[in-house]
Amino acid sequence: MRVLLLAGVAALSLTLPLSIAVALLLIVVATSYQQTITAYPGGGGSYIVAHENLGVIPGLTAAASLLVDYVLTVAVSTAAGILALVSAFPNLAQYQLEMSIAAVILVTVLNLRGVRESGTVFAIPTYVFLLSILALIAMGLFRLATGDLSYQPDQAATSASTQSLTWFLVLSAFAKGCTAMTGTEAIANVVPVFQAPEAKNARITLGWMAGLLAAMFIGISFLATQIGLVPSPNEDETVLSQLTRLIVGDGWYYYLVQFSTTLILLLAANTSFNSFPRLLYIMARDRYVPRWFSLRGDRLVYSTGILALAASSILLLAGFGSNVDSLLNLYAIGVFSSFTLSQSGMVLHWLRGDDPHRRRKVIVNGTGAVATMVVTIVIAVTKFAEGAWVVIIIVPLLIALFLAVNGHYRAVSRQLHTEVVVKPRGASPLVVVPIPNLNLVSRRALAFAQDLSNRVVAVHVVPDVKEAEALRNQWNDAVGDEITLEIIESPYRLLLPPLLAYVDALRETHPDDYLVVVLPEFVPKHWWENILHNQTALRLKAALLYRPGVAVTSFPYHLIE
Amino acid sequence: MRVLLLAGVAALSLTLPLSIAVALLLIVVATSYQQTITAYPGGGGSYIVAHENLGVIPGLTAAASLLVDYVLTVAVSTAAGILALVSAFPNLAQYQLEMSIAAVILVTVLNLRGVRESGTVFAIPTYVFLLSILALIAMGLFRLATGDLSYQPDQAATSASTQSLTWFLVLSAFAKGCTAMTGTEAIANVVPVFQAPEAKNARITLGWMAGLLAAMFIGISFLATQIGLVPSPNEDETVLSQLTRLIVGDGWYYYLVQFSTTLILLLAANTSFNSFPRLLYIMARDRYVPRWFSLRGDRLVYSTGILALAASSILLLAGFGSNVDSLLNLYAIGVFSSFTLSQSGMVLHWLRGDDPHRRRKVIVNGTGAVATMVVTIVIAVTKFAEGAWVVIIIVPLLIALFLAVNGHYRAVSRQLHTEVVVKPRGASPLVVVPIPNLNLVSRRALAFAQDLSNRVVAVHVVPDVKEAEALRNQWNDAVGDEITLEIIESPYRLLLPPLLAYVDALRETHPDDYLVVVLPEFVPKHWWENILHNQTALRLKAALLYRPGVAVTSFPYHLIE
Repeated sequence: MRVLLLAGVAALSLTLPLSIAVALLLIVVATSYQQTITAYPGGGGSYIVAHENLGVIPGLTAAASLLVDYVLTVAVSTAAGILALVSAFPNLAQYQLEMSIAAVILVTVLNLRGVRESGTVFAIPTYVFLLSILALIAMGLFRLATGDLSYQPDQAATSASTQSLTWFLVLSAFAKGCTAMTGTEAIANVVPVFQAPEAKNARITLGWMAGLLAAMFIGISFLATQIGLVPSPNEDETVLSQLTRLIVGDGWYYYLVQFSTTLILLLAANTSFNSFPRLLYIMARDRYVPRWFSLRGDRLVYSTGILALAASSILLLAGFGSNVDSLLNLYAIGVFSSFTLSQSGMVLHWLRGDDPHRRRKVIVNGTGAVATMVVTIVIAVTKFAEGAWVVIIIVPLLIALFLAVNGHYRAVSRQLHTEVVVKPRGASPLVVVPIPNLNLVSRRALAFAQDLSNRVVAVHVVPDVKEAEALRNQWNDAVGDEITLEIIESPYRLLLPPLLAYVDALRETHPDDYLVVVLPEFVPKHWWENILHNQTALRLKAALLYRPGVAVTSFPYHLIE
Repeated sequence: MRVLLLAGVAALSLTLPLSIAVALLLIVVATSYQQTITAYPGGGGSYIVAHENLGVIPGLTAAASLLVDYVLTVAVSTAAGILALVSAFPNLAQYQLEMSIAAVILVTVLNLRGVRESGTVFAIPTYVFLLSILALIAMGLFRLATGDLSYQPDQAATSASTQSLTWFLVLSAFAKGCTAMTGTEAIANVVPVFQAPEAKNARITLGWMAGLLAAMFIGISFLATQIGLVPSPNEDETVLSQLTRLIVGDGWYYYLVQFSTTLILLLAANTSFNSFPRLLYIMARDRYVPRWFSLRGDRLVYSTGILALAASSILLLAGFGSNVDSLLNLYAIGVFSSFTLSQSGMVLHWLRGDDPHRRRKVIVNGTGAVATMVVTIVIAVTKFAEGAWVVIIIVPLLIALFLAVNGHYRAVSRQLHTEVVVKPRGASPLVVVPIPNLNLVSRRALAFAQDLSNRVVAVHVVPDVKEAEALRNQWNDAVGDEITLEIIESPYRLLLPPLLAYVDALRETHPDDYLVVVLPEFVPKHWWENILHNQTALRLKAALLYRPGVAVTSFPYHLIE
């Protein structure tokens, strides 16, 4: 978990002053979050902090922004990870989109099977990436110092780059740099997962990560600037790939860097697969999203949330293709507005509390809140036309949805709360068993119905009453006279309408009785054989459900061939 | 019904000798089918005739071919009908595919709502089409005779046409002409729908239609040949449209012809919407396809079959776009092989019977069988590479599927047939009610359970046993000691596994009892609110279904807000 912060650096290229700005911002945010962790040792994501301190709407705003961002993280990180691979193997470029989607599916499957975040598996690529990049920077600096490094950008590339080195590029690069910051939120969310003392370890991890990340940002940007590296015009090679090629050549070290970059970016996507379902789980507990987001699958994972994330990010990838980068504006708005809300919430938290150092703490969180708010506003204003307006549509829509869901669940709770004692009616229910003939299933269902109640009616629907003669003849031998056999004529060979009419008539004549309809359900030997069975039972059940006072009992019959 | 035979003529262009060949074949087939109608007054489609006289595999072969053809008819007729419209309004050409799909959806919706084949509604466009085409032919012949008709094909079109006037074109045109012949099968299928005397009326209709159709084929082809009309190179205008423009100009008569052509072709597609579900119904009765194809919807139509046809033909249209014409090879193979099977079946039928005129009848049906078999073989051989091989894959696949379905249903019947008397166990079942708390629904479910049996257990799953204290305290006031309350601890907050384990344990300790699990199901006020409810109940039910001896009762609770 602790290392995923690194991912942002991997696919990105920033100019030096911008890198320093990002690094500074990162340190401000990290410091501010360290305080959040202390205050919320049970997990302090933006949703929880904003919801608790600022109110419902700010909380839901943070939640909606974060949910959007998690989806964007998966799409953008995966696309960037595959780009790192494609940089190394240019002839794979045509399958970039397919590979990205396959990567999302792979991560999804792993998460559905329940990846343990055991340090070892995830730590190896992380350390490899960390060490290889730091070593790369050191080598680069050394060769630069000895004047051993030179670079000849080709003409086309230079002009393309000059053209696009605008305010737009600067802000995009800034936004890219900020993808690394979701890691902060990720750590704050899962404090309880750390080893004891949890809060302290989480704080330390956060500090280290922010420091390393800042160092790497600045190192790579410094090198790229000094060499005068120009980004590849078609965005088909990452700056890191260009830089690595230049410093160490095309050998094994180059492939090591590219592979570990791909891995670290897929791990970054994986962070969302932990955080997104967890946030939905917390929101489901607070009844803002459907309750099934809080149900765990067989392997203790929140499968519904995982599948929702996978589906949304694959749609995003398929819809935007390799232009997924253009979504980074949305991303930055989402992440910084939720940071702002979270840290403003912390400011209120300290002001209301009686912490001895609250003055200092208000200043730290306040600085964070102001810094991220400034960034939010700058991006929102400058990038409004280029997609930031989408946030203004999606986030309120999501909030409206959350509130509607919450309203419904509250209404249900109101209806269900009671202190009244409900007494049994004291009479056996009236049991209705529709039977097509007297086969084994019908006979068993009738016997079962007799155990349920002493008032059982068998109903047989035929196109023509004469056709029911055979059944009547068998009846006394097979069942006896304890069960009434009702024959209903249905000249158009319809089954459901006459049955439903019969049940409705019974409801009218027996208003004080429970009605139980016993329907045999076939359980075939192979699951795909289900398509051949139970269709009538299913339709009948769906229709009966809307009739108050009628319970439906599925009586299973297991086919053995 | 009787007029749908006409449809084939509408969109098609045949050279004169080819038209005569098609017309002759049509007359042979029609004569042969008139005999089938006499022999099978209850409906004598190829499937029934071949199944009864030749055996299972020939019957299923005919059925599979026909099913494929019905799908093709819908796709091809709709596309042709829209082409007739586009011929009149060329600026609609870009929406051709969308319009075709919309037309299929329209016909589907009408059929799902249950279009009555009341003569009037369908007869008007039919007679309009018939009369306008016959008048057009008369006018054309008159102007031709008076030397008043001339035509200047533009150079590009001529060369394009010369190029493509190959064996391929000839056979395609032939296949196109044969689309009209499904009407024959359609009439044979639905003999009982005709007014009494049914068989006689059906025979007369068939005769008239074949005659009119042959006349129209030959008339239009003769005119087109005499004028030297060249088909539009991009297939963006039908020959009929060109011819009409030439004979009567661009006035109201032209639009009358085009509109009635579109209508008649949509009616042709509509024939499939009657025949396809009906064939599946017959096959479902014989247990070769899932039983739900034999269930009627609310409006007495076989909705499943209708939807299956709509889905397949839309897929076909979307997949092949305006190239749907290239599927006509498949079509011809399908229709002629089923004709061959049907008529061979009739030959055997007469040979086995003792009809006084059976010698003559054998000759008539035999001629039909040989003629259609020759056509089948010619098309299969010459068009093998261009798609006919698809039939050799699809038809056997469908047959294998039918046989598998049949095998399964037979196995089920074997298992269900019994003469054994099943006695009630004589003991109330053991009723299990899982409860999340003591809300109104739980209280009602518990009271209902007490009416079902005197042995009721309530099961409550909690993460920590201490949390169940509140429930225990309420218990005696709300329920009393007649129901045992079982508290199950589930530290990982899982619900299903501990419940299922509990049920499994009960099954082991009470092997001789029925177990009934009572699950409340919420019925929300608005159907879309279902997404917020019943997920746990659904999962639990799915899991319990696979445990023999456990019945699940859905106890509905109707939400009022």
